[in-house]
Amino acid sequence: MPEKQGTVRIIKHESAILRGNPLGDEYIRDLCVYLPPEYEASDEHFPVVYCLTGFTGRGKMLLNDNAFTPNLAERMDLLIGEDKIKPMIVVMPDCFTYYGGSQYINSSATGNYEDYLTVEIVSFVDENFRTIVDKNSRAVMGKSSGGYGALIMAMRHADIFGLACSTSGDAYFELCYLSDVPKAFRAIKGDVKAFMEKFWQNEKKGKDDFSALNVLGMSACYSPNPKSELGFDLPFDVETGEVRYDVWEKWLARDPVRLVEKSVENLKSLRLLYIDAGTRDEFALDLGARILCKRLKDFDIRFIHEEFDDGHMQISYRYNHSLELISERIERG
Amino acid sequence: MPEKQGTVRIIKHESAILRGNPLGDEYIRDLCVYLPPEYEASDEHFPVVYCLTGFTGRGKMLLNDNAFTPNLAERMDLLIGEDKIKPMIVVMPDCFTYYGGSQYINSSATGNYEDYLTVEIVSFVDENFRTIVDKNSRAVMGKSSGGYGALIMAMRHADIFGLACSTSGDAYFELCYLSDVPKAFRAIKGDVKAFMEKFWQNEKKGKDDFSALNVLGMSACYSPNPKSELGFDLPFDVETGEVRYDVWEKWLARDPVRLVEKSVENLKSLRLLYIDAGTRDEFALDLGARILCKRLKDFDIRFIHEEFDDGHMQISYRYNHSLELISERIERG
Amino acid sequence: MPEKQGTVRIIKHESAILRGNPLGDEYIRDLCVYLPPEYEASDEHFPVVYCLTGFTGRGKMLLNDNAFTPNLAERMDLLIGEDKIKPMIVVMPDCFTYYGGSQYINSSATGNYEDYLTVEIVSFVDENFRTIVDKNSRAVMGKSSGGYGALIMAMRHADIFGLACSTSGDAYFELCYLSDVPKAFRAIKGDVKAFMEKFWQNEKKGKDDFSALNVLGMSACYSPNPKSELGFDLPFDVETGEVRYDVWEKWLARDPVRLVEKSVENLKSLRLLYIDAGTRDEFALDLGARILCKRLKDFDIRFIHEEFDDGHMQISYRYNHSLELISERIERG
Amino acid sequence: MPEKQGTVRIIKHESAILRGNPLGDEYIRDLCVYLPPEYEASDEHFPVVYCLTGFTGRGKMLLNDNAFTPNLAERMDLLIGEDKIKPMIVVMPDCFTYYGGSQYINSSATGNYEDYLTVEIVSFVDENFRTIVDKNSRAVMGKSSGGYGALIMAMRHADIFGLACSTSGDAYFELCYLSDVPKAFRAIKGDVKAFMEKFWQNEKKGKDDFSALNVLGMSACYSPNPKSELGFDLPFDVETGEVRYDVWEKWLARDPVRLVEKSVENLKSLRLLYIDAGTRDEFALDLGARILCKRLKDFDIRFIHEEFDDGHMQISYRYNHSLELISERIERG
Repeated sequence: MPEKQGTVRIIKHESAILRGNPLGDEYIRDLCVYLPPEYEASDEHFPVVYCLTGFTGRGKMLLNDNAFTPNLAERMDLLIGEDKIKPMIVVMPDCFTYYGGSQYINSSATGNYEDYLTVEIVSFVDENFRTIVDKNSRAVMGKSSGGYGALIMAMRHADIFGLACSTSGDAYFELCYLSDVPKAFRAIKGDVKAFMEKFWQNEKKGKDDFSALNVLGMSACYSPNPKSELGFDLPFDVETGEVRYDVWEKWLARDPVRLVEKSVENLKSLRLLYIDAGTRDEFALDLGARILCKRLKDFDIRFIHEEFDDGHMQISYRYNHSLELISERIERG
Repeated sequence: MPEKQGTVRIIKHESAILRGNPLGDEYIRDLCVYLPPEYEASDEHFPVVYCLTGFTGRGKMLLNDNAFTPNLAERMDLLIGEDKIKPMIVVMPDCFTYYGGSQYINSSATGNYEDYLTVEIVSFVDENFRTIVDKNSRAVMGKSSGGYGALIMAMRHADIFGLACSTSGDAYFELCYLSDVPKAFRAIKGDVKAFMEKFWQNEKKGKDDFSALNVLGMSACYSPNPKSELGFDLPFDVETGEVRYDVWEKWLARDPVRLVEKSVENLKSLRLLYIDAGTRDEFALDLGARILCKRLKDFDIRFIHEEFDDGHMQISYRYNHSLELISERIERG
Repeated sequence: MPEKQGTVRIIKHESAILRGNPLGDEYIRDLCVYLPPEYEASDEHFPVVYCLTGFTGRGKMLLNDNAFTPNLAERMDLLIGEDKIKPMIVVMPDCFTYYGGSQYINSSATGNYEDYLTVEIVSFVDENFRTIVDKNSRAVMGKSSGGYGALIMAMRHADIFGLACSTSGDAYFELCYLSDVPKAFRAIKGDVKAFMEKFWQNEKKGKDDFSALNVLGMSACYSPNPKSELGFDLPFDVETGEVRYDVWEKWLARDPVRLVEKSVENLKSLRLLYIDAGTRDEFALDLGARILCKRLKDFDIRFIHEEFDDGHMQISYRYNHSLELISERIERG
Repeated sequence: MPEKQGTVRIIKHESAILRGNPLGDEYIRDLCVYLPPEYEASDEHFPVVYCLTGFTGRGKMLLNDNAFTPNLAERMDLLIGEDKIKPMIVVMPDCFTYYGGSQYINSSATGNYEDYLTVEIVSFVDENFRTIVDKNSRAVMGKSSGGYGALIMAMRHADIFGLACSTSGDAYFELCYLSDVPKAFRAIKGDVKAFMEKFWQNEKKGKDDFSALNVLGMSACYSPNPKSELGFDLPFDVETGEVRYDVWEKWLARDPVRLVEKSVENLKSLRLLYIDAGTRDEFALDLGARILCKRLKDFDIRFIHEEFDDGHMQISYRYNHSLELISERIERG
């Protein structure tokens, strides 16, 4: 255990933006904030890292106890204690939804989570903690859907977040999502509402239930349709499994690989753009990362790309590298 | 063991069509023919079933010994012995290639296997055995790529084969092939030639080697390109894994689901079109079958569709059902 | 979310018994206590349930956040809110060690965790919270190694714990532990110290590392040997994998199945003895439970036995049933 | 394909020893014999290798066609063609039973397969083929249960077989068989007869059916009991899964590791004793091999021991090494 330990604050934050969200999800949510040991011992201002969780996650889970892996607060303490990073505040927001996640974007089917994060949470943090209020002192990072969120922030909110790290972030949707369609087809059995009710009623989940939730969750985020019964369209026909290409196009329009060209200026403005993925990623996100990096290169955008020998799960040790890179490059007072 | 047993004839057949094939594969091949017990005991003519093996297979493998599962000759004996089917000749051709299979179609990259089967083999069988030479007395069936082959025969050679059964046949390529791309990418490691040499040199195969072979094999069949170094194009970039949509379009053009509209008359002329797949098929071919059946229905083509509770492997017991349906409907003398 | 929520108290408890333990593990530990909503709102005394975690766990992990499964505090709130159980205090002790766990027994190799729990923790809880200080108002429950702990408490400390529930508790060691020996052999590669150092140094664990830890952990608990270098003996030869039957006998002497005959009176005195396991338990603990119940029956000991259709992992929903049975039978003031 | 190819002869052999066997299994069986290319072209006599199949196998399966792996006849042709081995006859007997195999030993529950092999088959081969009739010109090899058979031959019939090779042979029963007990318990569901009837009736086998067959098969071989209903005892209680140690002792008495001490002289007399196993063997037979080799060493018996980086399945490429070692050491005319 490191000599000095930071403080974790779990704050009930009431969101105006999420109030009345279409899924009836909570609008008062736990916002978790890690303050480094130096915070209490001084009146300095600190840079801030926003850490976005993967699909099915929410900020609080980053603080879960595990005897073998430090949680994010313990990880910060360790890295600071070993002098691998300098003190930083870490913010862990909760953007979970009934369908498992929001991808940190606005959707008429789920709510305006992109606004929630960029407008409400960032302001709240800056108002309530001694942060350095500047994009160059504000980073965003995350894993899986959290990596996707980090990329979205980098692409659309470079004025807020000047540094971004995506670990195994969702990218190149053909290869990362399509293989879930057959599983979703089989789990959903033609009736999304019945599936979802059973899903939430039974603590015990079925074999393909999380794959189905993943497809439903992404549908709610990527292909909202206010005119449909569910509020969004599925990218496949629930009777046959056939891809609905009109819907699929809407998904592709939200693929980081396809978004690069619309975000060149923002991406070029970043102090840090870091992308990594495991070479055994079960969702082929190492290929996604390679394709994304190819696009970045095509547009002369600077980035750092790494691959590591692992899969998609239990890779929170990879946070270390993002945090070290951020610490190196983030602006301090 | 049934009272009476048929005879198996393994004949070295020299093919004019395969001679000089681009891969240098054998043009003298074992043609396996099962003759029912009644064949030798009479001078009758019999209907014929062509059974096409899956990818990586060849006719002879249908005669492999297994203590728990009858091979195709034993299966015929059993079904005939139990009076579930009437006597029929079964032909097991060898359409294997260096890349694992031919999909029973012509390709400048592999050879003219469609011609080999429809022209050479059928004539040879009719000339050398007491067959009933009529499309209504000639059926084709198969599993996996053999099911694909059966569908191709039904669609393009209904004048030769009047009955067709596809068990877990390759269909709807988005869902059955794309998920192999990441595996192929990782196994091939950017160098197809080196991969293939190692593949054939080492008896011990690597984890994703057969997935890679599958993608290569399908490429050789679906996207031949005489101008390319390999003689065919891969549907993905070997450096990044990105889908090459121009190549992918060529694949889709050979998808049974897409071929229906071009083959309506042929398909309508069939005495039997039977399609089944397991509801846990690892390649989502149950979805492929559903989508295919949807298309058939759209064109008012008659067919029988079944699903069974199993995966893609070790399902040769499903041959029984195809054989029974064929026996019921095939014309005898 | 239930209307009323209980309180969680996480207390730094300093243990005199664990101080100076042979592994140098912490002796100041987090003791987690759940107080029901009714606790703060009254000055009543409440019955207490001690919930013991499985191997590799510690009390705090029972409070981890998960969007799909209530943690133990949330579970209590829900069950109380739905009137399925009456208010009870729940205590979640930390008996973790360097080798992954203590099995809640004393060992010269790990420390006196049985004393720690029965002497220190129980007293501390009774002194610091409004508990009903009586064995009939004190229950113990747990899963996996926590189930083992509950059985040990029932067998040896029925004067303290008058009710005991074991879910998938370690029992019948031949079938639940031996299959880990080959995995441990392969992971340890002949050098326990080197293995353990690497294990704690690297956040990323190898395929069989937890199986190895399991065998090491059980060795430290079941076959301590103060004269050996490690302080305990392994039940197998690290050069060949051969079982060391002299050591194995020491393990068997701690098998609940074998301990029944020594604990008949204690076991007969219980108000509740509940045993369940999943019929797909990966460690065959459903067989262990059956064999244990057979022994209990042979000695005319009352018990309730259930089986459920699941494996060994992610079965915390089974706590509900234990808690309901405890709530029904535990004595309240 | 090698230039010259040997001949395969499949002979219906009628066994006096197997006639009237207790399981009603066939007594007229296919005996497969490979004759090297040089056999027909000369009147020489040749050394003979007996290749014993694993559990669930029979000689004929060694001749199955596979596009990626040579069958045993093709393998011989290749090795002879590449001059890696000298010409030898290979005999592939069929010792299959209703319960999946005989372990090549006599049992009142299955039949006298040890006699069948050593008395009938060897004589028949020597009488019908130009063999060198001498133990130093007769080898036995096999994989899995075939490796076990080879060890048994070496231990009890060194006067017949002067060379023996065991690849992944069953040894150290604690670690290779016990882990199948829970699976067998679950598949058998308390009724062996019902299980076996269903097993043979349904071509489609259940998840744990082969594990159950394995336990039943070994029981029929290792713990026959003429007084029991089945003719043999199971090593576990079908109601609870508890190990029946009286039966288990009978198994252990047939463990190669335990048989060494009774066979020292025979084992010392061998020209070749080769033992290998994969370091990822799913039945821990690499540990079995190590323990066996330890015993051999203790008794000053010469042997060659190797480990290879693989599991238990699809390792027929390992035959090469056995065949090369045999060819090197076997006596020729």
